[in-house]
Amino acid sequence: MATAEPATLGPATARRAVLRIEGRRADWVMDEVATELPLTLRVNGVEVATLVATPADLEDLVYGFLVSERVVPSAEAVRAIAFDPAGPSADVTADAEVEDAGARMFQRRYVTSCCGKGRASIYFESDASALQPVSEGRPLRARTALELIRDLQERSDLFRRTGGVHNVALATPEGEVLAVRADIGRHNALDKLYGHCLRNALPTSDLLAVLSGRISSEILLKAAKLRLPIVLSKSAPTELALALADEIGITVVGFARQDRLNVYTHPGRVLVEEG
Amino acid sequence: MATAEPATLGPATARRAVLRIEGRRADWVMDEVATELPLTLRVNGVEVATLVATPADLEDLVYGFLVSERVVPSAEAVRAIAFDPAGPSADVTADAEVEDAGARMFQRRYVTSCCGKGRASIYFESDASALQPVSEGRPLRARTALELIRDLQERSDLFRRTGGVHNVALATPEGEVLAVRADIGRHNALDKLYGHCLRNALPTSDLLAVLSGRISSEILLKAAKLRLPIVLSKSAPTELALALADEIGITVVGFARQDRLNVYTHPGRVLVEEG
Repeated sequence: MATAEPATLGPATARRAVLRIEGRRADWVMDEVATELPLTLRVNGVEVATLVATPADLEDLVYGFLVSERVVPSAEAVRAIAFDPAGPSADVTADAEVEDAGARMFQRRYVTSCCGKGRASIYFESDASALQPVSEGRPLRARTALELIRDLQERSDLFRRTGGVHNVALATPEGEVLAVRADIGRHNALDKLYGHCLRNALPTSDLLAVLSGRISSEILLKAAKLRLPIVLSKSAPTELALALADEIGITVVGFARQDRLNVYTHPGRVLVEEG
Repeated sequence: MATAEPATLGPATARRAVLRIEGRRADWVMDEVATELPLTLRVNGVEVATLVATPADLEDLVYGFLVSERVVPSAEAVRAIAFDPAGPSADVTADAEVEDAGARMFQRRYVTSCCGKGRASIYFESDASALQPVSEGRPLRARTALELIRDLQERSDLFRRTGGVHNVALATPEGEVLAVRADIGRHNALDKLYGHCLRNALPTSDLLAVLSGRISSEILLKAAKLRLPIVLSKSAPTELALALADEIGITVVGFARQDRLNVYTHPGRVLVEEG
């Protein structure tokens, strides 16, 4: 408990201009999105994990993670934490023997080494091909987007029965649903859809993903790997997901509900009904 | 694309007896919960990841994961997949050079090596201490549980503004909220709460976690590490989380909404209003 506590390494939210479409109206409005921070954690110089987290209460996070995951034996073993906003990283000095990083990583479920630098363009460090811009694809009508969201909800049988899974669909911009997969993990649902396309020789570079859940940076990264030009969700995107989408050229549509939706990035692919 | 496709390595849902409390009534009913499968994935004998997934469309999952994460260069490189329900595992034969597991794991975000055996008791392989039963703690009134859920929702300011974060609270069974933390990741929110308790010398072994989101096996595992006797959520638990809770002695309360809640495991800690 040695260093002064940085309450945060940045704000927990960011403001962005968003194209809000409602019926035949489309207005640019300022909206607030949640930020994600990829915090690289080193103990006695050994990298143990990168935690993708909301940038608040980070000293609590470091203590809680290190003790609960038994990287250090107790809170008392932590001597000092030095945060570096440029990393962003936290360097911990501790009375603990920390195994070599390679071995440790095996035991971490929080490993996200490809976002260790905290900037969108380096997020893909280990997988540079995902950084190539996606193709233009075909435009999506706002009305079709809302129909796809409704359709996904109607198909969510397993979710209704158990409340425990995510449904994700792959669809054409014209509104044809090619496949729907349900999974405990949204990445898995997207991987299942991709596997389905691969095994049936269906190209994905003109399709969109339709999700019910949040568009996190990890989901965006997966969509980029599938070369999807559009990601559509009933829920919110995170700021890091939007930074990635800006860079790769993916159109992110969020909060698609009833007759409204928000276009966060690359709005050119979304068509508003003519008035 | 060599082997016959196993549609599944088990059902996507499981049925369990659940104590459903509504007002002053408490009835045992059969309920359906989503299952989770920790599928260990090996390519040419090298372990590359363990995917915690819904046990359906697993051949799609393997193809989609291997190609999107570039473990193999293309779907055509996959020669055969042999599923072993006893693992559960998938052994892939592929025309691909797969790096040594230690190196690969560094690049995977799906690393969950501690659940590589697929059974609750081995889930904790790398962290056996979490398997020790939690303490009895103090009882929780159903009414208090519902008040805590309402309280969490009222505090969810960042969520309301951005739709992008999880709120988690630590509270006493008497209904006193000790701290609330918001994060993009629910594990992080729990780690932040734990860090807060560690730094303020507050024991957690009598407390409960209050969440808005799903109780997955990973959340349950984290709660076990904090020695929390009760986990309470507005949403559903998964079957693997319940198997773990059964074993460790944690009371899981889910679907707590309005005047109803479900007690899934160790119901002795939950008190119903006298009639």
